[in-house]
Amino acid sequence: MEIEKRSFEIIAPHLKNLNLNDDEKKIYSRMIHAAGDVEYAPIIKISSNAIEAAKNAIKNGCNIFTDVEMVRTGINKKTLKKFGGEVFCKVADDEIKKIAEHEGITRSMAAMRNFGKKLNNSIIAIGNAPTALFEVLRLIREENINPAVIVGIPVGFVGAADSKKSLVEQNKIPFITVEGTKGGSPIAVAAINAIIYMLDNSR
Amino acid sequence: MEIEKRSFEIIAPHLKNLNLNDDEKKIYSRMIHAAGDVEYAPIIKISSNAIEAAKNAIKNGCNIFTDVEMVRTGINKKTLKKFGGEVFCKVADDEIKKIAEHEGITRSMAAMRNFGKKLNNSIIAIGNAPTALFEVLRLIREENINPAVIVGIPVGFVGAADSKKSLVEQNKIPFITVEGTKGGSPIAVAAINAIIYMLDNSR
Repeated sequence: MEIEKRSFEIIAPHLKNLNLNDDEKKIYSRMIHAAGDVEYAPIIKISSNAIEAAKNAIKNGCNIFTDVEMVRTGINKKTLKKFGGEVFCKVADDEIKKIAEHEGITRSMAAMRNFGKKLNNSIIAIGNAPTALFEVLRLIREENINPAVIVGIPVGFVGAADSKKSLVEQNKIPFITVEGTKGGSPIAVAAINAIIYMLDNSR
Repeated sequence: MEIEKRSFEIIAPHLKNLNLNDDEKKIYSRMIHAAGDVEYAPIIKISSNAIEAAKNAIKNGCNIFTDVEMVRTGINKKTLKKFGGEVFCKVADDEIKKIAEHEGITRSMAAMRNFGKKLNNSIIAIGNAPTALFEVLRLIREENINPAVIVGIPVGFVGAADSKKSLVEQNKIPFITVEGTKGGSPIAVAAINAIIYMLDNSR
């Protein structure tokens, strides 16, 4: 906790010109801390309604669906559980592997498709696979799936930047993301945990 | 696999002037891919004997000890198991929590100290906590612990850069690291999995 506090003090000057409210500052600080990279400051994007929507969803006991096991591992499940929510990830399931092979799609994509209506009112946390984010955006557009918030922070040089651009350009679902190629599991986890901790009075 | 291949092609020009051998290129590519950040290229440091030492350790069935659960989650345990090795992490154990509180040290530090002699001939993978890396370096210096390789890539603004500088400056144990504040679980996982995959003929 001491280390976290000192780290946030070091990060603070880099947020000064971004005109953030207190909740946004907490999320930015935790994401920048998780990457060890202050160059995240100008590329983090949080839609105006995302934090409120995420807080309400968590308070209502929403579940969180992740693209990879590392994101599931990192989310503070013990604190989430106090509100009734759980974290699910299917990417390593044998059933999903079979579906993905049969349909010629990635496992992350098959896993999101397989969650289907369970994604309604949930928080979706993507920290690795652009194809998972593209699939979620398709489910919203074509199948009326209606998640509460998308934390969409896939990483890499093939599809990640484009998938995050599409997330920012859709104007239906509140989102937290990072522009460009950077991102990853700890960054998505940082955003989610920052919000969980805002609601946890024991911290 | 297709996405990975295209990603590595995009990364390749950024490695051109670094004079890397094929194994080094694989590790660099996977680490840069995991961060979505080509600026890792000049700050990744691999000691001359680290890859060979890690390959031999894995072939001999060595275990891998991690500082956090996210690193354990990300390592390809199924492939490692073919050689006889397993991955251990104690940071979330109740026993470690008690020791850390009693001794006034971080849990990551208590966990590494608690592994003790089990760290001999192992690979240590640190993707989060500078205190875990500092403790491992102390165990080597003061208690003759002798790991095969340290993949030491803690992240952040408090201690991470210093702990990694100490890792580079000790000249006993082979290492893979990243200079400065950047790093994190997926970067440590990427380095470890790159080496595991070099040994796996099924890939």
